[in-house]
Amino acid sequence: MTRNAGSHGPTTAASIRRVGLKLIYEHGFNAMSLRQLAAEVGLQPASLYNHIRTKQGLLFGLVHDHMLALLEQSAQALAAAPQGDPVGRLRAFIAHHLLYHMEKKREVYIANFELRSLEPANYRIIVALRRTYEERLIALLEEGVAAGVLDVHDVPVTAYAILAMLTGACTWYKPEGRLSKPEIVALHTDLVLKGCLRTAEAPQGRGPDLSKLTGQPPLRRGNRPTPPAAGHEAPA
Amino acid sequence: MTRNAGSHGPTTAASIRRVGLKLIYEHGFNAMSLRQLAAEVGLQPASLYNHIRTKQGLLFGLVHDHMLALLEQSAQALAAAPQGDPVGRLRAFIAHHLLYHMEKKREVYIANFELRSLEPANYRIIVALRRTYEERLIALLEEGVAAGVLDVHDVPVTAYAILAMLTGACTWYKPEGRLSKPEIVALHTDLVLKGCLRTAEAPQGRGPDLSKLTGQPPLRRGNRPTPPAAGHEAPA
Repeated sequence: MTRNAGSHGPTTAASIRRVGLKLIYEHGFNAMSLRQLAAEVGLQPASLYNHIRTKQGLLFGLVHDHMLALLEQSAQALAAAPQGDPVGRLRAFIAHHLLYHMEKKREVYIANFELRSLEPANYRIIVALRRTYEERLIALLEEGVAAGVLDVHDVPVTAYAILAMLTGACTWYKPEGRLSKPEIVALHTDLVLKGCLRTAEAPQGRGPDLSKLTGQPPLRRGNRPTPPAAGHEAPA
Repeated sequence: MTRNAGSHGPTTAASIRRVGLKLIYEHGFNAMSLRQLAAEVGLQPASLYNHIRTKQGLLFGLVHDHMLALLEQSAQALAAAPQGDPVGRLRAFIAHHLLYHMEKKREVYIANFELRSLEPANYRIIVALRRTYEERLIALLEEGVAAGVLDVHDVPVTAYAILAMLTGACTWYKPEGRLSKPEIVALHTDLVLKGCLRTAEAPQGRGPDLSKLTGQPPLRRGNRPTPPAAGHEAPA
């Protein structure tokens, strides 16, 4: 056991959060005890209550901070992207999302896998923040559709599909893996953009005739805004 | 409490599995007790041991059956697809994966979220089955690349990205949602195929110049086989 918490409040609080994140990630929220947390931080169980009131409070704090960081850093990435360039902005969103998720593997895991462990009021707050984040990608796709550079069946469900794909990287990514982060970003960016770009019409002889290749009739395509994703939950 | 188990062994065993699946899905493996399971099935706790030996055995059985079903049904879907048509076979794989994951939401959830709850020997068996399933998609993508119809940066990581995207549907899909299953299949099929199809070369003036739009240099493209995804875990 490492005694990494001194008598300094902020340092101890940071240790509790760091160790709490690790324990929830490794054992699950239900299986982790505050007694175990206190022991790993190097505190008496009673002293823990000077810093956190409940296990639920610890979980909510971890997930809430993750969502706020994701939203803030994503906004910064978009602010730095060229305005008026929907593809450039989508590219910035994709790169940020991937880099964040490869870095914050444990936070993301807990935010997804322990969503069910949040009490109703906390759950609603987190789901609202997730919705805000999803709406950001939905707005980017709508910008691209409106500008005539993107062409997707349905904007909200396409956004969910893209988020699931990008978030998936945090489950298999390892720093020592075969591909570097820039290569992983390039691969996903290419996959998403090719998947969403408007292809030139077949009659002009430009681009593959996708409907023939996919065997699917085109549906709900075009520039008109799509209704909200009622009846569909946020993707994990 | 519904007493839905009689004295018939197979019926009781099926009830235990069905209720066990529900309880693990709702409360998590660590939080579920065999006492609770017995009560919901309508058995005395001691009688439960006539059917399952341990909670771990129950979990492993559920995840193992799910993986075998996924592998078998996927093989059937591919057997029914046109041979020698890599795009048609990829389409069959995508449609089956999506339909299975929209149907078997709870099995998929448990197989992904409780993977860490499996004991080492059980974990290795499940991960090997997942690897077999991933290899099936990897082989399909390699067929398409070899046939010159697909063009991806890196086959294994593209397979992980596709699987994460398709599996994501089980987290947000609801039968009463806005899009039907065929529409969801069409949307994802289009996104994946457009993302992976070889686009005509820019010099011929056919298709968008993707490298300009994505701002990424092309890397590791082409027909040569890719090394195995060493260092990368299976996607959740």
